[in-house]
Amino acid sequence: MTIHTVSSGLDTIWVVLTAAMILLMEGGFALLEAGFVRHKNNVNIIMKVFADITIGTLCYYLIGFGLMYGNDFLGLIGTDGFMLANHPSHLNLHISLDTFWLFQAAFVIAVISIVSGAVAERINFRAYLLFVVLMTALIYPIAGHWVWGSGWLGKLGMEDFAGSAVIHTLGGFSALAAAIFIGPRKGKLTPEGTSTVALPSNLPLASVGAFLLWFGWFGFNAGSTLSATDGRIGHIAIVTMLSAAAGGATTLIYTLFRYHRSDAPSVINGSLAGLVGITAGCAFVSDQVAILIGAVSGLLMMFATNWLEARRIDDPVGAFPVHAVSGIWGTIAVGLFAKDGGLFTGGGWHLLIIQILGLAILSLWGFALTWLGLKVIQLWIPVRATEEEEEVGLDISYHGMIAAYREHDFINHEDRYIKYQEDDIESN
Amino acid sequence: MTIHTVSSGLDTIWVVLTAAMILLMEGGFALLEAGFVRHKNNVNIIMKVFADITIGTLCYYLIGFGLMYGNDFLGLIGTDGFMLANHPSHLNLHISLDTFWLFQAAFVIAVISIVSGAVAERINFRAYLLFVVLMTALIYPIAGHWVWGSGWLGKLGMEDFAGSAVIHTLGGFSALAAAIFIGPRKGKLTPEGTSTVALPSNLPLASVGAFLLWFGWFGFNAGSTLSATDGRIGHIAIVTMLSAAAGGATTLIYTLFRYHRSDAPSVINGSLAGLVGITAGCAFVSDQVAILIGAVSGLLMMFATNWLEARRIDDPVGAFPVHAVSGIWGTIAVGLFAKDGGLFTGGGWHLLIIQILGLAILSLWGFALTWLGLKVIQLWIPVRATEEEEEVGLDISYHGMIAAYREHDFINHEDRYIKYQEDDIESN
Amino acid sequence: MTIHTVSSGLDTIWVVLTAAMILLMEGGFALLEAGFVRHKNNVNIIMKVFADITIGTLCYYLIGFGLMYGNDFLGLIGTDGFMLANHPSHLNLHISLDTFWLFQAAFVIAVISIVSGAVAERINFRAYLLFVVLMTALIYPIAGHWVWGSGWLGKLGMEDFAGSAVIHTLGGFSALAAAIFIGPRKGKLTPEGTSTVALPSNLPLASVGAFLLWFGWFGFNAGSTLSATDGRIGHIAIVTMLSAAAGGATTLIYTLFRYHRSDAPSVINGSLAGLVGITAGCAFVSDQVAILIGAVSGLLMMFATNWLEARRIDDPVGAFPVHAVSGIWGTIAVGLFAKDGGLFTGGGWHLLIIQILGLAILSLWGFALTWLGLKVIQLWIPVRATEEEEEVGLDISYHGMIAAYREHDFINHEDRYIKYQEDDIESN
Repeated sequence: MTIHTVSSGLDTIWVVLTAAMILLMEGGFALLEAGFVRHKNNVNIIMKVFADITIGTLCYYLIGFGLMYGNDFLGLIGTDGFMLANHPSHLNLHISLDTFWLFQAAFVIAVISIVSGAVAERINFRAYLLFVVLMTALIYPIAGHWVWGSGWLGKLGMEDFAGSAVIHTLGGFSALAAAIFIGPRKGKLTPEGTSTVALPSNLPLASVGAFLLWFGWFGFNAGSTLSATDGRIGHIAIVTMLSAAAGGATTLIYTLFRYHRSDAPSVINGSLAGLVGITAGCAFVSDQVAILIGAVSGLLMMFATNWLEARRIDDPVGAFPVHAVSGIWGTIAVGLFAKDGGLFTGGGWHLLIIQILGLAILSLWGFALTWLGLKVIQLWIPVRATEEEEEVGLDISYHGMIAAYREHDFINHEDRYIKYQEDDIESN
Repeated sequence: MTIHTVSSGLDTIWVVLTAAMILLMEGGFALLEAGFVRHKNNVNIIMKVFADITIGTLCYYLIGFGLMYGNDFLGLIGTDGFMLANHPSHLNLHISLDTFWLFQAAFVIAVISIVSGAVAERINFRAYLLFVVLMTALIYPIAGHWVWGSGWLGKLGMEDFAGSAVIHTLGGFSALAAAIFIGPRKGKLTPEGTSTVALPSNLPLASVGAFLLWFGWFGFNAGSTLSATDGRIGHIAIVTMLSAAAGGATTLIYTLFRYHRSDAPSVINGSLAGLVGITAGCAFVSDQVAILIGAVSGLLMMFATNWLEARRIDDPVGAFPVHAVSGIWGTIAVGLFAKDGGLFTGGGWHLLIIQILGLAILSLWGFALTWLGLKVIQLWIPVRATEEEEEVGLDISYHGMIAAYREHDFINHEDRYIKYQEDDIESN
Repeated sequence: MTIHTVSSGLDTIWVVLTAAMILLMEGGFALLEAGFVRHKNNVNIIMKVFADITIGTLCYYLIGFGLMYGNDFLGLIGTDGFMLANHPSHLNLHISLDTFWLFQAAFVIAVISIVSGAVAERINFRAYLLFVVLMTALIYPIAGHWVWGSGWLGKLGMEDFAGSAVIHTLGGFSALAAAIFIGPRKGKLTPEGTSTVALPSNLPLASVGAFLLWFGWFGFNAGSTLSATDGRIGHIAIVTMLSAAAGGATTLIYTLFRYHRSDAPSVINGSLAGLVGITAGCAFVSDQVAILIGAVSGLLMMFATNWLEARRIDDPVGAFPVHAVSGIWGTIAVGLFAKDGGLFTGGGWHLLIIQILGLAILSLWGFALTWLGLKVIQLWIPVRATEEEEEVGLDISYHGMIAAYREHDFINHEDRYIKYQEDDIESN
């Protein structure tokens, strides 16, 4: 037994365990979103997350990973490593390529799951499946290459430790584009055009989701070291905790004083905003800055939610406020507060400008490619559910089933889906 | 601090953490099964899983472990190590016996939990408790000894890395025997004898279960190395992911085209089938083969489900299709595709024949001993709930409580169970 | 790469991963409690847990940690290390201060979450927030200092490995004080003064909580070694499992024979009681003793629950029976059975007497400071919800929202909270 063997095993289990934690976040996304949307769309949103994790994994294996981490071509794109056919020599991994891939796959699935929330309750399911392919095979991997895969933004010096920009800002802008492209849910706007609100179908379920996400985030941030002997792990974990706590506490107290009620969805999203905000800087900023990042993330999430409502953009679970807005703030905060290179820590403007440039590029890329992708899909399949499908609920329309049956009778197999279409519509 | 100490600590935490992940799968089983069965049996099925984890753990500690891993007698049975009284010298563990035991206990509980689903909604609770004792003290440990505990099948060369055969095929055939023995649920067959379907009481809950199972499976497969410096860990983790994704994606797309709806229970079970299928071969097959194994597992699960329906065998949560069928396929796939010894990889017929022999033995053992065990229990306690208990629901019949109360009033202690019996039957 | 680097990385990931597991227990507390209380208070109890984890984390960072682990003053209190400003030199950690802090923060949040259950369904939310501050900044940290932070009880030789006394007995007595102070829920006592029972709003949800708690407990107990090369980890994990199994099995069988029904809430709480009971002695007692500890914990929990009912003390989720009673028994059991120093293992009376002394101090401290704290809060804010708020349900009263909406219509933003107040009260 050599020290190299032990060290290598240690890194391997660290990355495998944290990857499993991140994959459990898919359960978090599914339940959070199911709890937030209306009851008649619970099954659909969970099935969208199953599509993310199943189809997304396969697409990233076949195509995405090679584009992201293959040998670089002009700083723009990776060119090999598809299906892990060869080991991209430049990666200099201390862990096996398999292990590295698993961790990266967990990331790509998170990105597409961000989008699933923004198009909730009204996207055509087949169109969504095609979008999963585009996002996990092309849109995210190419942008990821620029920052993390020896592409041009990484070479410029952009710092995004675990993905406030690459994962959350990109995913959040993709979510925004999709939400605008597809339009608001039927009934979301009054005939006069003012925005209304649909109340969450199941807050305890959404809370299960939030706790699974919070747990998985320790894997997300601390696991991004990819090495258990990276001396920053403890620090990454503590700032992740402090920022999440600050985000949740801020929204809890803010809504308590502003509305005289601690608004549960805001507290949940505030905690998540704190987690998103610290994702870029967890390895670079101090404890106190982490608390600041989290608190500001929570507040920005609240304001951005109201801004979307005022703009009549319908983002049912708050994907843009939580992921894009906090992601932008967290990435800028690195430019402001990074121990090494931050504006307020004596590093000058250089890093900050690169961070802003990177954010602009990633936001634009996420927004534009999503819009374009949906346009292309639209040529073949309507991206939006029909009025009737939406009215009935996507659960019955696309899955022939509602989320919860309380009656006890058995149904003939051949009547199964017919029954859904006729009877349950009324009783639902 | 010597390298041996560090290496030993590393292996210990790896096995303890993965064991904890497998134990969390009990939550997965409980919620998956609760979500799939009818509302009036939700509490009962969760309590069955609590029986698995509490009584099963104690039985395995007192009796089962010794039979499985004690010093071998004629390749048939272990003879010591009961209550961990002595350290079976032949085990050659790099971890402590305690740690090894915990990991094995997590396995035995999974086996019995497979059966709990097949007898859902109609087994007598006390009879089930006795069956838990039989399974965890005798049926599984003896069979486990043959393959993993220096018994005759292992000596022949059978390969079952983490238990497609020993856990899932055995458990699935035990489930089949129990489902046939106990007969279909009241109302499952029409008076003309055709099979009908009961819709899931809570798909979001079932999904929580599926995500917990998926998470725990990384512990199940990768943890089975029992050593963090086993170079196969990364590979095991990636093929586990790919096979699950392929199983889920296949059923998602298959049901979409076949029924024009992505059937949620099928997608959930398809993902699980992919996980079961790769469990035997995760250390032995390539990435591409893992995708094949998963995809075929998903399809076989669908066909086997329909076959059971046609045969009028009532397996409410699909225990046999998910565990036995995918388990058989996964174990055979090792004989076909194992890098070392597979038929299609130049290894000839030897391994394949042993795999099939082992499957036949384990299936027969699981089926016959379960049948025999239930016969013996039947002498003492009726194995099946009475018609009235089943009609009222096992929750009220055996636990005096329904799964969810929405009214707000307090009840006198002495009226507690009486109230359940009289009033709630109608209101439920 | 030196062996020191590897060993240090190993300890770090061990503590970070187990801390994350303990933090996931907050999800467990939230769902367990939500499932046990009435539907109209589900959101409130989850928001209380969010307050624990967000506000509690920040208070412990700002004040609590320094009082608990700062340099000792007269054995009574820590005096530095606030905001981790300096490294308390006496700690002799093998892990970074950040990592150590995270693990300790997970503990303090567990303590306050114990109390949240006892005051369920009737505490004023703002008063609760203030109590969170008191508990996490002062009450627990000071007592924690005495035992774990080089204070006087630790110096006397009190043994409490992972906190049966410091966490659970203290938390449980705080819960008792709060439950008495605040009085029983409206309707809990009949006009004649006899106690009644409210049935659980959602047992499957409570079960999710129990499984998450069980999972996290492996982190709680085994992680308390703070070192992956501590040879006791495997043993700690196995006795944790055995005690939990014994607690659950005992209550399952006891209620089956006593009430002819396996009572689900009792089985859940019995398993948790087994976990609480073994928390003090997991590093010190044998397997067989662990089974004894668990079985007795389960029974004591049942008797204590009945005792509270007879005394007309309203503890809606059983915080005192599960945490204080099992905690006391577990701490005493160390004095009786510890391999080194237990009365029945040849160690004489010394340890036992110190354990009892410590328990008395911690119980008294938890009870008295909680009472005093609530008295002080009462000067400013009524500690108890108004009759109307309680009747309507704390979800609507404090959060303007009920746990689950089934209807599908959109609501005007400005009518959001008004609607809750007027309409939903009746329809709820």
